[in-house]
Amino acid sequence: MFQFWFEFASMYSYVAALRVEPECARAGVTVAYKPFLLGPIFAEQLGIKDSPFNVQPVRGRYMWRDLERLCEKYALPWRRPSVFPRNSVLAARVALAAGPAIGPVTRSIFSANFAEDLDISDPAVLRRSVQRAGGDPDRALALAQSPELKAQLRENTDEARRLGVFGAPNFVIGGELFFGQDRLEDAIAWAQRT
Amino acid sequence: MFQFWFEFASMYSYVAALRVEPECARAGVTVAYKPFLLGPIFAEQLGIKDSPFNVQPVRGRYMWRDLERLCEKYALPWRRPSVFPRNSVLAARVALAAGPAIGPVTRSIFSANFAEDLDISDPAVLRRSVQRAGGDPDRALALAQSPELKAQLRENTDEARRLGVFGAPNFVIGGELFFGQDRLEDAIAWAQRT
Repeated sequence: MFQFWFEFASMYSYVAALRVEPECARAGVTVAYKPFLLGPIFAEQLGIKDSPFNVQPVRGRYMWRDLERLCEKYALPWRRPSVFPRNSVLAARVALAAGPAIGPVTRSIFSANFAEDLDISDPAVLRRSVQRAGGDPDRALALAQSPELKAQLRENTDEARRLGVFGAPNFVIGGELFFGQDRLEDAIAWAQRT
Repeated sequence: MFQFWFEFASMYSYVAALRVEPECARAGVTVAYKPFLLGPIFAEQLGIKDSPFNVQPVRGRYMWRDLERLCEKYALPWRRPSVFPRNSVLAARVALAAGPAIGPVTRSIFSANFAEDLDISDPAVLRRSVQRAGGDPDRALALAQSPELKAQLRENTDEARRLGVFGAPNFVIGGELFFGQDRLEDAIAWAQRT
């Protein structure tokens, strides 16, 4: 099982989200989508309530430039979001609520945040993301507010903690953790070997 | 000019140091070796006097595993150092003192730290590193203590700051900064385009 662990507020997760499906398909590997929340993990591990890229401005400046270059390299649309990081709690629940459509819905939400500079904490933006991905927005938004979905997102975040996650995105194969979108190829090779 | 900015205490710099020369040679790119000190930069930017991998144990645990996998991938010898990070001030000065032999001396010192678990702050270890790289240990160790070499290392660290460095290793082409050993191929492609 090839798991893709991501956070909708994370810019490197955007690059991974748009690359993971075609790369895995080419290798004959099936992707399991695992949205989680990085906020609580950063709070616990770093004692911060913001992105490390904001807390460390020199590093942050580089990361934005790096993202620009990566999007050019992989021919991905890119617009630097006017708000970073965006609140991603509802977005993550909506993705989980999409069931088998979680792949297209995930890409659609990431594109809203990082290619269109839209506020992915706004239910109207999320409705449109679900719709464009061919899902049922009424159903997804209603389900996203249910206790079951809220619990599922908390469980995902707990599982990420247990896996030793400290950032996003990650790829996990049988407990073996690969951190960073630049480890996608290594993770796929690992999945094919095991 | 393709600059390789590295820190002898940094484990990812080890991987980069052993990969940079063959990859650049294949691409017809000449490497300029730029040792610098990450300690003062971490102190200023993060307020820490240790490696972030020690300060953040969850991240640190992953990084050691990642290093193991990378060394297997690139067929590099690897022994986890019993002391991390090691004091690298004298090592950096000795590398600068090697003049045109800085490439082989750099690889030799990195191998002492990360393949042989030797203390690279020990002058005897550094003498042996220079000797194995075909350099003159007496000359290098004497020169390393000179005011000129001390100033040169301080200037390198100042230049790293000006370039926006926040970690190691880095590749810099005409002011364009690439951070991380995993950006080596992208940096070479950039050098070839410009």
